[in-house]
Amino acid sequence: MDIVVDAFGGDNAPREIVGGSITAVNLNEDINITLVGKESAIRNELEYFGYKGNKISIVNADEVITGEDVPTSAIRTKTNSSLVVALELFKTDSKYDAFVSAGSTGAVLTGALLKIGRIKGVSRPALAPLMPNAQGTQTLLIDCGANVDSKPEFLVDFAVMGSIYMSNVLGVNKPRVALLNVGTEDHKGNQLTHEVFELLKSREDINFVGNMEARDALSGGVDVIVSDGFAGNVLLKSIEGTALFIINELKQGVKSAGIKTKLGAVMMKKVFKNLKNKMDYKNVGGSVFLGVQKVVVKAHGSADARCFYSAILQAKKMVESGVVDTIKSSLGE
Amino acid sequence: MDIVVDAFGGDNAPREIVGGSITAVNLNEDINITLVGKESAIRNELEYFGYKGNKISIVNADEVITGEDVPTSAIRTKTNSSLVVALELFKTDSKYDAFVSAGSTGAVLTGALLKIGRIKGVSRPALAPLMPNAQGTQTLLIDCGANVDSKPEFLVDFAVMGSIYMSNVLGVNKPRVALLNVGTEDHKGNQLTHEVFELLKSREDINFVGNMEARDALSGGVDVIVSDGFAGNVLLKSIEGTALFIINELKQGVKSAGIKTKLGAVMMKKVFKNLKNKMDYKNVGGSVFLGVQKVVVKAHGSADARCFYSAILQAKKMVESGVVDTIKSSLGE
Repeated sequence: MDIVVDAFGGDNAPREIVGGSITAVNLNEDINITLVGKESAIRNELEYFGYKGNKISIVNADEVITGEDVPTSAIRTKTNSSLVVALELFKTDSKYDAFVSAGSTGAVLTGALLKIGRIKGVSRPALAPLMPNAQGTQTLLIDCGANVDSKPEFLVDFAVMGSIYMSNVLGVNKPRVALLNVGTEDHKGNQLTHEVFELLKSREDINFVGNMEARDALSGGVDVIVSDGFAGNVLLKSIEGTALFIINELKQGVKSAGIKTKLGAVMMKKVFKNLKNKMDYKNVGGSVFLGVQKVVVKAHGSADARCFYSAILQAKKMVESGVVDTIKSSLGE
Repeated sequence: MDIVVDAFGGDNAPREIVGGSITAVNLNEDINITLVGKESAIRNELEYFGYKGNKISIVNADEVITGEDVPTSAIRTKTNSSLVVALELFKTDSKYDAFVSAGSTGAVLTGALLKIGRIKGVSRPALAPLMPNAQGTQTLLIDCGANVDSKPEFLVDFAVMGSIYMSNVLGVNKPRVALLNVGTEDHKGNQLTHEVFELLKSREDINFVGNMEARDALSGGVDVIVSDGFAGNVLLKSIEGTALFIINELKQGVKSAGIKTKLGAVMMKKVFKNLKNKMDYKNVGGSVFLGVQKVVVKAHGSADARCFYSAILQAKKMVESGVVDTIKSSLGE
């Protein structure tokens, strides 16, 4: 399997991206990686990690797209950026199975949409992160920001794609699909969710379990949370923000307390570590961009080598499961 | 000051409602309360708490509106419910300064809108809870669910009303007002927030600081978070859900761990308690319904006596600060 990697996307590029890629080829016999970006810098990193194998190749690209760039114009003007060169390669060379980048979300989505293209029949591709939950499994949120002005039919496609992902890639039997709403009752919601509710109810290809509240997003009671990208973005980011807030409050509390409390914190270390592991996006991989013609994974912007490796593994699983083909045969024209 | 209380609203009515009301009249010389609901049951509760004073009166109402009722029809048909009778009293008897209920949010808002009425000039009244933040102060979220299909001008009114509340009631100087969005950059957002952003930028009566992400809702960096009710509801409930998730995970972790960890948790007790206090809505009061003709406070549905007392105090502060009059003179026709 051949994977194209944007070596200059994300806060920790290129070192952590190269590190994660080396782990991927070392631990997975069937993975070959092409790193796209400033060649000399990539060579330095490969040397830094002491990589001597032949499963990683390099394609040079001198420019870098950052979070400051406006996505649409950056994709059009920075034609020699690692992201655009990587996507061109992915588009034109059929040997490549998947693309992974930790770059700016807007640029990766815009780039993938323009270069790789939407599956005809899918109203809008959507960005879908996996979230941890209280059951110790994972919940897919779709969409978390690719579409901030959705029409009802978009959300129906999100539901179908999310269901296919959970079933094909994670092996969940009849994934439970819920609609993010302001209440659990059938009649709750705004104009959009009212219409989506009726449409989802009538679909026989998904296991629609009704409306859900944001309060239950981490309960593990459903497998797929369907949402407009605006509300989904608010959900995802407030979960992150709240978790960070609580962890910081506990840290500050321990820091400013006496020796007894500090000792207590040390004794509780294992519990905190388990919680941190459970909440840690680094174990989960990236967000998948569903509804485009090929496998595109957006790794976390602050991905380290371990996290980026998870995103590559996720791309690998997507390729093996044939999720894109299933979406094509379900929704494609 | 005379306050009407719906004695049969909320999960813990009437006991905790009566308990909170007794605390309010006992600790505040200037507060008199009229409890509305089943008279004999209320008398029993007053006896239970041993209240012998003359600052609490009772108005009988035999019916109860529950969370199962559909708000609009319940307000119209259950004319002898504690909520409707209380609102009629509040509407017709000018001696009453404020109304407090822990009942179903939908019913309280619909009832207040129908009986008390919107301030002419305010496009839509909004429900605004106070949230704790990392600075140890409070942040007002407006709207959290009263308006789930907002037009741009609604959010501008939310911003003005929220700013007046924070300034008049909590004494915040030039409250910082931010727009909930999917990114902090000026160009980020959906159609609604794009339009609202431009409108807020041009207002000279508020201190608009730009877009904010849900991630920063608890940072205390702003005083007022302006949002459509749908996204605001998602924000509020996902904060609650995430906090609960983390607390449960820690509890389960300690429960299933060895004696060392358990001892550690006991030694850290103070830190956990401080965090719990900081996060506790019971200390904050209720959500205020801004944009109606009089002071309406919606206490938390699971309010206990202490929490309900906070909501009464909040109503008192609102009356004293003249926040409704300021809103009338700023936005009223």
